[in-house]
Amino acid sequence: SAGPVQIVSITEDHKFVLDEKKLKQILFHKRALGKKISLVSIAGDFRKGKSFMLDFFLRYLRAKDHKDWIGREDEPLKGFDWRGGATRHTTGMIMWSEPFLLSLPTGEEIAVFLMDTQGTFDSNSTVFENAFIFALTLLVSSVTVYNIMHNLQEDNLQHLSFFAEYGVLAIDAYNTSPFQQLTFLVRDWQFEYETPYGFDGGEEVLSDRLRIRENQHHDLALVRSRLKQCFRKVNCFLMPHPGLKVTNRRDFDGRLLDIEQDFKKQLLTLVPELFNMENGNFLKEINGEMITSTDLFEYFKSYCTVFASGELPTPKAMLEATAEANNLAAKSASKEFYIRAMEQHCGGDRPYIHPNQLEALHKETDRQAVEKFRCVRKMGGEEVSMVYQKNLEDEIIELYSNYKKHNDSKNVFAFSR
Amino acid sequence: SAGPVQIVSITEDHKFVLDEKKLKQILFHKRALGKKISLVSIAGDFRKGKSFMLDFFLRYLRAKDHKDWIGREDEPLKGFDWRGGATRHTTGMIMWSEPFLLSLPTGEEIAVFLMDTQGTFDSNSTVFENAFIFALTLLVSSVTVYNIMHNLQEDNLQHLSFFAEYGVLAIDAYNTSPFQQLTFLVRDWQFEYETPYGFDGGEEVLSDRLRIRENQHHDLALVRSRLKQCFRKVNCFLMPHPGLKVTNRRDFDGRLLDIEQDFKKQLLTLVPELFNMENGNFLKEINGEMITSTDLFEYFKSYCTVFASGELPTPKAMLEATAEANNLAAKSASKEFYIRAMEQHCGGDRPYIHPNQLEALHKETDRQAVEKFRCVRKMGGEEVSMVYQKNLEDEIIELYSNYKKHNDSKNVFAFSR
Ligand SMILES: Nc1nc2c(ncn2[C@@H]2O[C@H](COP(=O)(O)OP(=O)(O)O)[C@@H](O)[C@H]2O)c(=O)[nH]1
Ligand SMILES: Nc1nc2c(ncn2[C@@H]2O[C@H](COP(=O)(O)OP(=O)(O)O)[C@@H](O)[C@H]2O)c(=O)[nH]1
Ligand SMILES: [Mg+2]
Ligand SMILES: [Mg+2]
Repeated sequence: SAGPVQIVSITEDHKFVLDEKKLKQILFHKRALGKKISLVSIAGDFRKGKSFMLDFFLRYLRAKDHKDWIGREDEPLKGFDWRGGATRHTTGMIMWSEPFLLSLPTGEEIAVFLMDTQGTFDSNSTVFENAFIFALTLLVSSVTVYNIMHNLQEDNLQHLSFFAEYGVLAIDAYNTSPFQQLTFLVRDWQFEYETPYGFDGGEEVLSDRLRIRENQHHDLALVRSRLKQCFRKVNCFLMPHPGLKVTNRRDFDGRLLDIEQDFKKQLLTLVPELFNMENGNFLKEINGEMITSTDLFEYFKSYCTVFASGELPTPKAMLEATAEANNLAAKSASKEFYIRAMEQHCGGDRPYIHPNQLEALHKETDRQAVEKFRCVRKMGGEEVSMVYQKNLEDEIIELYSNYKKHNDSKNVFAFSR
Repeated sequence: SAGPVQIVSITEDHKFVLDEKKLKQILFHKRALGKKISLVSIAGDFRKGKSFMLDFFLRYLRAKDHKDWIGREDEPLKGFDWRGGATRHTTGMIMWSEPFLLSLPTGEEIAVFLMDTQGTFDSNSTVFENAFIFALTLLVSSVTVYNIMHNLQEDNLQHLSFFAEYGVLAIDAYNTSPFQQLTFLVRDWQFEYETPYGFDGGEEVLSDRLRIRENQHHDLALVRSRLKQCFRKVNCFLMPHPGLKVTNRRDFDGRLLDIEQDFKKQLLTLVPELFNMENGNFLKEINGEMITSTDLFEYFKSYCTVFASGELPTPKAMLEATAEANNLAAKSASKEFYIRAMEQHCGGDRPYIHPNQLEALHKETDRQAVEKFRCVRKMGGEEVSMVYQKNLEDEIIELYSNYKKHNDSKNVFAFSR
């Protein structure tokens, strides 16, 4: 049955481990294959109600009817583990085991993935680990919810300055903004009588905090101007306190009955808007192209390789990694195309065909696959791209030689009968 | 009438301004002169209930009877301004305009000062400003309450690493630990069912967070070990949420009626313990010596001079500043002594005395003043100390020449009558 799956963990000696097998099981889920995708993630400090919030996202995604999605008053809240306790119990990144299908206004079905993270600042992490988790989240998600407590403050913006720098490089190099939507979710907003809950209040707070003031220190001004450049959309939502029953009672099981009315009311605004199909940033794009879940798998792998060094890469190194992942993903898609096409003609259940016919088939499919690779917009320029094209061609040759052998074996079998 | 007084402010162009005149009015308050002192401060992020908490400290210090200090159920809470609003309204450091007198178990009266600060991380401050305010607070206070939200985390400890480094230098150089008591005050503690409110729960959390673990990154381990060396006492108190009436209602005026029972109960433990006269760190010491409020004035001035450069000094520069302040304070005390003694013999209302007698008096008083200066334990070594002793001697010579003239003028006056 469906549930949370840890896909990235941090070892005792501060190494990152991507569980490729588990991630593949999720991203290669048959419901998602070939579809456009969305990845909605939540990031931020531990024990601040992130998983609790995600479980409402789950309710929304599971609901048949988007009117009564929030559920019954006495229903315990389940899904991603949320719970009391001052010390964290998950580390790294957790994905929901299966995608959810939603329909675009056009009727086209897309696959939505959900991700929980366990990040920033606590006694067992270092700055690097936190930055790593945050970086990976921003890179792979289409919508990143940055969960913060009480107020949007300088340090929250400062955490983003590294990414902003990377973003500026990407824009300079490839005219593309690397990140999509960043939504600051302010929990326990205490000043509703001054600035109202919701996106409107959030907009007020955000534009105040992002305003570049005269006399402002240069570095502060820089983060602000870059942030606006590097994310395609930045918004903010002010959320009320859920009530002392939620925060202080050991036996609270998440039922709506025990949650303050104000909180529930704002949930009804926040959640549907986060999954609004008409939001131009809802679908995951990389480098201006919609990607599929199998592409995303390549990106995950490639980013993790870059971060494996144990030091946060420079923005420049991260840019190279993005370019690499870009090419890897394109290569992988072309290879998939080749395999799918060839399987149709000479796969396991197909009859023997004449070697000349097979060669002609291979040649045409190979041409199309390479053409496909070349047409994908890729970062990193022609030089990098040529390396990956060469790899693709080599791998296709190897695949072809296997298809040939397999085809020959069918022939022998036919004679021996 | 008594009230909050801003003594350090930050200008538009990020300079620190010490209001010497106002600080002098407070620290030279007649109730404090010659007494041992205590300075209790609160530091931390803005809009986290610091001033609100200080107003309960005020109630305790004002109460005749330490049993009913907490006040009536329907009494608005006044004193330091606390209030709603997401943007800060005070910047810098604010002191209560007068000292409070408390009695040691021996019956000796001491003077207690209270200080509020407006510090760490928000849109208008830079890291340097925050660090400055925190540094100055730690240096001048005997008890610093570090107010933090929800949990004691890595970043709270990391803020302290600079001070820890300074502390280690001071210990190496002068065998003295520069800081006295640091009390982490955790607000809105949500995990009472796991770790109880109060100092006991705080101790659990603190020892967990300060435990140096195997496999822990070196820098984390370092902060931990240094912290224990550099503060004479580090403790922690877990405080419950005060209730949604306190945090969300515009018309809340601080009356006890509207505050959750748990919060009030913990106040009754926290406040008397912070002002416990039997606490060996309650009285302000610098370099192992109790200081007076006039000494503290010298320290304030001297630290502000060092920080005026607009950059956080190196731990070494800060050490030199401490030594300088140490000598300045000793010089100032000796000069005060000289003036007081001479005033008794030849002040404005005293009769004319023979110049020979005056010279003898001066010589003896001068000797005693310099002796006094020499006896104070001072940081910075003999070389630094000699510079200040020379200054002291020069200033005393100048004072003597004034006393001589004044004495002569009395003689003339006597003749002309
Ligand atoms: N103060 C506060 N606590 C919350 C909120 N939402 C959930 N919590 C509580 O915070 C604790 C941690 O929740 P969890 O979702 O596990 O936090 P995570 O570590 O960020 O994923 C639980 O006891 C929740 O009941 C909120 O909006 N504000
Ligand atoms: N969450 C929370 N809010 C508090 C607490 N104590 C006071 N407040 C509220 O926090 C707001 C800011 O208080 P204030 O004392 O001015 O904060 P300061 O900027 O840290 O001095 C006010 O609306 C208070 O009612 C507390 O323990 N927890
Ligand atoms: Mg969680
Ligand atoms: Mg305040």
